[in-house]
Amino acid sequence: MKLKNLKGTKDFFPAEQQIRNKVQRILEETFQRFSFMPLETPIICYYDLLASKYAGGDEILKEVYKLSDQGKRKLGLRYDLTVPFAKVIGMNQNLSMPFKRYEMGKVFRDGPIKTGRLREFTQCDVDVVGIQSMLAEAELMSMAFEVFEKLNLDVYISYNNRKLLFGILSSIGIRNDKINSVILALDKIEKVGFNGVRAELEEKKINSTTIDKFFDILNIDANNILDVLLENFQNSLITEGIEELKELNSFLNVLGLSDKVKLNPFLARGLDIYTGTVYEVFLSDNSIRSSIGGGGRYDKIIGAFLDDEKKYPAVGISFGLDVIYTALTMKDPANRKPIIDLLLIPLETEKNCLAIANNLRKAGIKVDIDMSGRKLNKVLNTANKNNIPYVIIVGENEIISNKVSIKIMATGEVKECEICDLENVLKEIMNSKR
Amino acid sequence: MKLKNLKGTKDFFPAEQQIRNKVQRILEETFQRFSFMPLETPIICYYDLLASKYAGGDEILKEVYKLSDQGKRKLGLRYDLTVPFAKVIGMNQNLSMPFKRYEMGKVFRDGPIKTGRLREFTQCDVDVVGIQSMLAEAELMSMAFEVFEKLNLDVYISYNNRKLLFGILSSIGIRNDKINSVILALDKIEKVGFNGVRAELEEKKINSTTIDKFFDILNIDANNILDVLLENFQNSLITEGIEELKELNSFLNVLGLSDKVKLNPFLARGLDIYTGTVYEVFLSDNSIRSSIGGGGRYDKIIGAFLDDEKKYPAVGISFGLDVIYTALTMKDPANRKPIIDLLLIPLETEKNCLAIANNLRKAGIKVDIDMSGRKLNKVLNTANKNNIPYVIIVGENEIISNKVSIKIMATGEVKECEICDLENVLKEIMNSKR
Repeated sequence: MKLKNLKGTKDFFPAEQQIRNKVQRILEETFQRFSFMPLETPIICYYDLLASKYAGGDEILKEVYKLSDQGKRKLGLRYDLTVPFAKVIGMNQNLSMPFKRYEMGKVFRDGPIKTGRLREFTQCDVDVVGIQSMLAEAELMSMAFEVFEKLNLDVYISYNNRKLLFGILSSIGIRNDKINSVILALDKIEKVGFNGVRAELEEKKINSTTIDKFFDILNIDANNILDVLLENFQNSLITEGIEELKELNSFLNVLGLSDKVKLNPFLARGLDIYTGTVYEVFLSDNSIRSSIGGGGRYDKIIGAFLDDEKKYPAVGISFGLDVIYTALTMKDPANRKPIIDLLLIPLETEKNCLAIANNLRKAGIKVDIDMSGRKLNKVLNTANKNNIPYVIIVGENEIISNKVSIKIMATGEVKECEICDLENVLKEIMNSKR
Repeated sequence: MKLKNLKGTKDFFPAEQQIRNKVQRILEETFQRFSFMPLETPIICYYDLLASKYAGGDEILKEVYKLSDQGKRKLGLRYDLTVPFAKVIGMNQNLSMPFKRYEMGKVFRDGPIKTGRLREFTQCDVDVVGIQSMLAEAELMSMAFEVFEKLNLDVYISYNNRKLLFGILSSIGIRNDKINSVILALDKIEKVGFNGVRAELEEKKINSTTIDKFFDILNIDANNILDVLLENFQNSLITEGIEELKELNSFLNVLGLSDKVKLNPFLARGLDIYTGTVYEVFLSDNSIRSSIGGGGRYDKIIGAFLDDEKKYPAVGISFGLDVIYTALTMKDPANRKPIIDLLLIPLETEKNCLAIANNLRKAGIKVDIDMSGRKLNKVLNTANKNNIPYVIIVGENEIISNKVSIKIMATGEVKECEICDLENVLKEIMNSKR
């Protein structure tokens, strides 16, 4: 048997995994400060649930991993966290609204593997159901800024309202059979720039007068774009969209975020489920062109999905763990901090090292004992390669004299101390290096 | 469509999930202090990997969820974290040994659902490969004590060596066709007690002389059981097992753990893969009779699994997230600490509340803004039901006077303060309540 991983799945080794864990802890901690609660839903679902009318549709159904069990039930692996969320709302009608939850977990899509696109990947979703006010969007957008501040990544948010977008498209008079491809082309501005979008629209045989109209809109000054649009287009969808955007803007203003957000009247977020506000988070330095998070309002989905007349206004945001990882390591390859503080190398002093390690670990220091039995030189080389900051070689002499030398690997410096003082001395050195 | 979960899967709601998260954070933090590194492996595996000879065998294969993809590959969901671990070792022969890793993740078994047994559940595994010395077991056992100390659960570890067990069984002369059922019966002592085991052995038609021999061994004084066994049984397996146990004991002694471990010469941990040491963690008060963690040494598995002549001595321990959750909530139902510190209730002051919330959240306080639009009375009742400790009602008067009243829900007390002082006053109150 040749050992291998399925294409589109991978093993995350410690150097990468510890950063992914750190990101998840920061996300989680921030979500909780914004009073979102953890929910965990099953990965295995009834296939009917995944295939139901208002879930992802035919396109995504092709990509669902299907399975059956010993009871011959038709099952599938979840392809997102939104369908399971809607299911939870539907199964628990007594949940008090608004219901705010986050979930971080694996989802599965048997789709084409583009660069960096995995078939088994982790989604981090935050959603609230039961709030009609734009307050919900404002909180999620403000939370996104908090997340990336904690991650030390400088970002801006591009945002829009789908009602505005559809209003503009219908006012300009895009034919129904072209509307989807026009939306998808315009949606790429952040990624491919103005010229890229123009080329794609031309390729799709959109006439140049129409294309010019789009670019006229894109050239309107950001400060009064809403008023200019309101003046130039009379259309109830546009009016409604602009009203919502103005409400949202007033909240963003209170939060001091106006300078960090950018209205893009052609942002759509694909052909997805959104009904109103949409937003995407981008790195300010554009070192990654695709969004590193995004979401929006999907007021009609949960109710329709549940075949329920009740209204379930909902807003969400999703963070991409893999793309955030890429952003962090591109920015600072040295981000891979060592997970171990100290390596003890016993020379026939295993038991003493065990006792020393145990005390230091109880004090919160991360300690490894070398058990490889390899030559001292090789052990030190590996410690160096693994970025272990402190090493102590413990021979019989050290035990007899009750004194050890802490080797500071970065500088080659050596610091002597009594074994009983080790905890304090190490903590002192470790703090001074921070 | 009737919404439901597959039998053996469940949604974990916030009250439960936040405790599960807390447990996982404590596990993770402790694993790292013992210098174990995070690894994440895929859930979807090639079926051949799961079905390979030295993996779980026929019994478990029935319980594997099988699936295929658009490329018609034969795939399956992993049923444990050990097979993926062995796969990683096999695929990365350049990994420097010893390799210490932990993994926490979902595994899937389409098996019978006993009480509390799920078909989709989270395993938390810690393993080290490449260490022959009993130091490895000693570290894992000591780590287990640290884990449960941090979790505030009082535990003891029952341990044994399989070589000793098989030596005894062969010395006593158990017939080969009975050996497995005898092992399984004896393995239940912690769960069903002496009488339960005796009844089961009688049922299995083990003659009473033999049964008496078992109970003679169980009655040997714990302090010199190894010497007594060594004297009474001459058998190379027993000698080897006792040698290993004595080495392990000497390490446990150095760690001050001798009083917290209990040698049980009939502990087997099922018919599983173990080759030497085995151990199981039990609650000291026996409020849960089954083990809440366990593991052992499996020196032959990885090499055989990989069809590799090289030796891969390995030791591991696994923690049961669900049973730990049960133990924690049995002990203290009030364990369900609120995840929110403060609820702001705006009375036509949404924007002001948004700004106040934002500042407090930046200061690390978990704040929710009521957006339900329900009557004040109902909102306060829900806050009470949800154990939210502090509530502030923000009306226009509060904004004009720049003063708010913090309602301390537990006592009904009210504390006035200026809005700009809110962060300090809240932190003071919160600290004094801890």
